[in-house]
Amino acid sequence: MNLSDLQQPAWSRAEFEARLREKGKAYHIHHPMNVLLNGGGASREQIRGWVANRFYYQIAIPVKDAAILSNCPDREVRRSWIQRILDHDGFQIGETRDEGGIEAWIRLGVAAGLTREEILDLRHVVPGVRFAVDAYVNFARRAPWQEAVCSSLTELFAPEIHKQRLANWPQHYPWIEPTGLQYFRNRVSQARRDVEQGLQVTLDHFNTRPLQERALQVLQFKLDVLWSMNDAMALRYGVRT
Amino acid sequence: MNLSDLQQPAWSRAEFEARLREKGKAYHIHHPMNVLLNGGGASREQIRGWVANRFYYQIAIPVKDAAILSNCPDREVRRSWIQRILDHDGFQIGETRDEGGIEAWIRLGVAAGLTREEILDLRHVVPGVRFAVDAYVNFARRAPWQEAVCSSLTELFAPEIHKQRLANWPQHYPWIEPTGLQYFRNRVSQARRDVEQGLQVTLDHFNTRPLQERALQVLQFKLDVLWSMNDAMALRYGVRT
Repeated sequence: MNLSDLQQPAWSRAEFEARLREKGKAYHIHHPMNVLLNGGGASREQIRGWVANRFYYQIAIPVKDAAILSNCPDREVRRSWIQRILDHDGFQIGETRDEGGIEAWIRLGVAAGLTREEILDLRHVVPGVRFAVDAYVNFARRAPWQEAVCSSLTELFAPEIHKQRLANWPQHYPWIEPTGLQYFRNRVSQARRDVEQGLQVTLDHFNTRPLQERALQVLQFKLDVLWSMNDAMALRYGVRT
Repeated sequence: MNLSDLQQPAWSRAEFEARLREKGKAYHIHHPMNVLLNGGGASREQIRGWVANRFYYQIAIPVKDAAILSNCPDREVRRSWIQRILDHDGFQIGETRDEGGIEAWIRLGVAAGLTREEILDLRHVVPGVRFAVDAYVNFARRAPWQEAVCSSLTELFAPEIHKQRLANWPQHYPWIEPTGLQYFRNRVSQARRDVEQGLQVTLDHFNTRPLQERALQVLQFKLDVLWSMNDAMALRYGVRT
């Protein structure tokens, strides 16, 4: 970004949204680790390693979302955003009960042949994954809540990667219990709903060219988090990058 | 606390709980501002001032509780603790709907003759109330989550002060719309339920004499927050302390 960019008028909402969506080209759906996993060529150890490492991201999500809540003075935003924590941690309210995404992820791991214990104790999580995930949580703690919301917009690209898994895994990895893939089914619809709120907050708040440029940087940071996690896993599990 | 105290064995759970409860003698139920309000001698301006100032505390509560969530890696604790945010912000999940405690507090203010606008824009909130409440939120952000939980234990003493209000206000302040007192009715049962979780976490975690002493300090800090809010309101609204 140079000085002349800062003096440009704001992009229209449609143009700004298009530029956010264009960032999808850097989504980890294109990372060699994911290409291998979703292309069907991964070994059992690589699948299990990915599930066990990604669990560290899963357990960070409600902590990250609570950090957003705790920085957000807008009750209406909080009332919507809290749904994400309920989705991941699970809840029982009135007759409505949900085991939650963290439990669903554990079941994915068990379906792939890991024990619940070795998932929960994080023994397989490599340092590069920890550092990337921790960077994301720390960002959410310290950044203005609108930036933390913006960083969640990798959800724009998530339904596609989950649908890829649902389409390819049962065929390529028949040894994974099919019920274990429920997490991906849940997230296809949840991510679509979630991204609506994140997108509205982002389009509303980042309404000058410098702010819009900042939003693109923030989204890039989150893309880097996901990419870097995949780099660390690829190195550990012998995937050429 | 001197060095010899640190070398003492831990109090039993019963003894520790008794010492926590003993702190009730410093609860703001004994503050001249509250004695005046609940004794029936407060003017309309004093009641309205108290409701408008205390609103700043009400809106800080879900932010404080989200800070606790965001510092807490224990999913089971989060699954219970999140109920407090739902209680204050309100929610609709399945068929279960709740307007929330913040909205109930606004209705109390309206019932007492304030406009919704002058409650929401915080124009009546005095600096001493802001600083005390902000100190509480900042503590919850930065302290270990078990200390932040412990600081909530002024709830041990809250049902009594709410029952006092419910018993005395309709008689002394018949000009307040009776439906406006719903907040206090809700909190009598909510506070009883909430305190159970806070007490269990505290009794479990603070299990050496130095930790138990620390818990008493933390609870005293929270009592100081509430007392200091009352000092600031008393000074502003002409209550002799």
